[in-house]
Amino acid sequence: MADLIQPRTLKGFRDYPPELMLPREHLLEQARRVYRSYGFAPIDTPALEYAEILLGKGGAESDKQHYRFTDHGGRDVALRFDLTVPFARFAAEHIGKLGTPFKRYHMGLVWRGENTQRGRYREFMQCDFDTIGVTGNAADIEVVLVINDLLVALGLERFAIHINNRLVLNGLLEELGLAGHSKRILIALDKLSKIGPEAVAAEMTAGDVQANQAGRLLALAQTQGSNTEILARLRQEFGGNATAAEGIRCLEELLAVAIEAGVPNERLHLDLAIARGLDYYTGTIYETFLTDLPGIGSICSGGRYDNLAGLYTKQQLPGVGASLGLDRLLAALEELKLLEARSTPAPVLLVQFSADHLGAYQKMARALRAEGIGVEVYPEAKKVGQQLQYAEKRGFRAALIAGPDEFAKGTWKIKILDTREERAVPTDELVDVLQKILQ
Amino acid sequence: MADLIQPRTLKGFRDYPPELMLPREHLLEQARRVYRSYGFAPIDTPALEYAEILLGKGGAESDKQHYRFTDHGGRDVALRFDLTVPFARFAAEHIGKLGTPFKRYHMGLVWRGENTQRGRYREFMQCDFDTIGVTGNAADIEVVLVINDLLVALGLERFAIHINNRLVLNGLLEELGLAGHSKRILIALDKLSKIGPEAVAAEMTAGDVQANQAGRLLALAQTQGSNTEILARLRQEFGGNATAAEGIRCLEELLAVAIEAGVPNERLHLDLAIARGLDYYTGTIYETFLTDLPGIGSICSGGRYDNLAGLYTKQQLPGVGASLGLDRLLAALEELKLLEARSTPAPVLLVQFSADHLGAYQKMARALRAEGIGVEVYPEAKKVGQQLQYAEKRGFRAALIAGPDEFAKGTWKIKILDTREERAVPTDELVDVLQKILQ
Repeated sequence: MADLIQPRTLKGFRDYPPELMLPREHLLEQARRVYRSYGFAPIDTPALEYAEILLGKGGAESDKQHYRFTDHGGRDVALRFDLTVPFARFAAEHIGKLGTPFKRYHMGLVWRGENTQRGRYREFMQCDFDTIGVTGNAADIEVVLVINDLLVALGLERFAIHINNRLVLNGLLEELGLAGHSKRILIALDKLSKIGPEAVAAEMTAGDVQANQAGRLLALAQTQGSNTEILARLRQEFGGNATAAEGIRCLEELLAVAIEAGVPNERLHLDLAIARGLDYYTGTIYETFLTDLPGIGSICSGGRYDNLAGLYTKQQLPGVGASLGLDRLLAALEELKLLEARSTPAPVLLVQFSADHLGAYQKMARALRAEGIGVEVYPEAKKVGQQLQYAEKRGFRAALIAGPDEFAKGTWKIKILDTREERAVPTDELVDVLQKILQ
Repeated sequence: MADLIQPRTLKGFRDYPPELMLPREHLLEQARRVYRSYGFAPIDTPALEYAEILLGKGGAESDKQHYRFTDHGGRDVALRFDLTVPFARFAAEHIGKLGTPFKRYHMGLVWRGENTQRGRYREFMQCDFDTIGVTGNAADIEVVLVINDLLVALGLERFAIHINNRLVLNGLLEELGLAGHSKRILIALDKLSKIGPEAVAAEMTAGDVQANQAGRLLALAQTQGSNTEILARLRQEFGGNATAAEGIRCLEELLAVAIEAGVPNERLHLDLAIARGLDYYTGTIYETFLTDLPGIGSICSGGRYDNLAGLYTKQQLPGVGASLGLDRLLAALEELKLLEARSTPAPVLLVQFSADHLGAYQKMARALRAEGIGVEVYPEAKKVGQQLQYAEKRGFRAALIAGPDEFAKGTWKIKILDTREERAVPTDELVDVLQKILQ
């Protein structure tokens, strides 16, 4: 025998065994169902693209974040780093045929060669949804409805969607005569919850911002009170600035429509401190926090942008969307004990008491599957005790057993694995009884 | 403005817009549902692995099939070429903890730098299921049940699962004194349907096989008749050979159990001509053909193997499984007109008649979504005609309209887009009426 190759994965990469994959599939399935129910359609793009597309023409050779190499055809290629850049390229290429408005979701792996400390992986999944080709506030409002429905579908009730609008911040910067310095200021402001107001003020005043300007910005960002109170203060202080007034109007409409549509008021938080450092956002911005786990950070973030695909096309493509933090959300669901600890997707194990009855076992298993009950038939006629041990280890909920006695009587034995309770059930009642047990 | 970057994908790669992704997701969803209903659990492995793992220690540097490169850490890495090799590595690494039997499915992208002619892509999805750690025939039989259920779930009725067993072929080779030459002979035999018996015979006799041996092999491979007749002939001619007898017994049991479980007899074809060139298979082998599209080749193939992970572990891991040919199947479903030509996942478009009523629109949309009806609210208050044009282009089935008249009367107007039929429905009957229309 040749030397064995040591089985191992690359640093920063990991396998997903069933106990990790079942929750990931559950989450993706719920996201897919909610996105689709709003008319977002799925797309996919290649994992591998021209490096020029993914990094831009100035893409630095030394950029360690990108997995970049030369393919067999001599092409300079890279693995995608996020789903936003491929979507921009996709939109530039196809929007003429697709038409607008265009609503898409995209769930896919991305790769980043970054530092693997603190539980970050070099391969992870993103899960984005966007509406492009529209400027109206209706699409911005819908983002809040989608986030709400998605988290509720995952069993979460206690969360807050924090909302702000760049126009409000821009209006304030105009009023302060700082309109040209917004990028730097917003990057500093975005750190408020992490580093505190003094450090943010220090970072601002280290640039071109004066202490009184920083003070006014921070006072605004830290405004406390109900949404109504915050809106009233904004209108009073900055309503005279046209830019701010438009931002205020959008926020007001967003809150009114979301509440009328049924989103509980307490889940909607105007939060003038969220700035989302990205230069890219131009209107509404969103972050989402779990009330019971604020420390994990935002689990769904996004915003409105004026121009998605300016690197690839002259056609202006405005839009709005958000990205679900899949790994954070999985970690949160685990911590909140909202995930089932099973490594089987089928709830019922049908014990193979004797290989002679395999036809009868598979016939019953198919009948149960046709009623929507997942059934695994144990693949070997081992001792019943061993098969039941397997069922417990994997997390099956019930085992079905039929040997010569049961076949003679026309019954099946059901063993409920949590309680070890056993009962004999006539064959023609088995579907009903199992459905009740599994409910 | 800087020069634009031309938006384009790499040769051999493609985007999936909604009209391609909706069918792909439908197919994956059905496969997931069927696999799970048998207790197969999902796993995933990294796209990127050590080249040594994927190619073996002798992996040729010049192998153009693999996307292979050196990462930032100086590691020799490659993108996965299939899902079998990563599964072998995964099993070697985790089987001690997971235990056996272990049933998994794996749906994931793979990359091959191969010739892009004839509609082949360099990135495509594979969709495999396997049971490992068992030698019993029950797992082999289950593969047939899974293939049957999966194709039926996709709306296919006319298909044939071709089944053979390597032990029958091996028994014959033993009888002919050719046991040591099986690999070469099976590779030739596997080409029977493509190149015909003369060419196969020529290929065999060019090696160490004599004309009368090749004749006997080909006569066996071309045996015609019902499954019962073929089994009778096999038993009569080779039943005395212990290897062949075991293969015959397994095939007999497979047919009997599958038929008792409810698979129609006419979908099960003993086919002694399928050999599946891979050296890897050792028992039952499967190929699946669509009766109305035989030319596209097998859409689901696989078999039993003795040793999955011999490169990475001394632990013998026997198993059986199959792989769904996703792209072939999608092409077939399209050709058989079993795919809906829509580019929206939501069947209903709610027209935004006036922005003033956005709250009422979103409230109704959420009520319909809660009943399982997907509803897209048009994101701008454009002219109704333009919104209806959009609905027709995207393939929505119904539009909902409510303006001041409808709000005054407490009704909604439903427009059925295929027939252009319109009707007014009281608000409290809307869910029922829509559910009937969409059935």
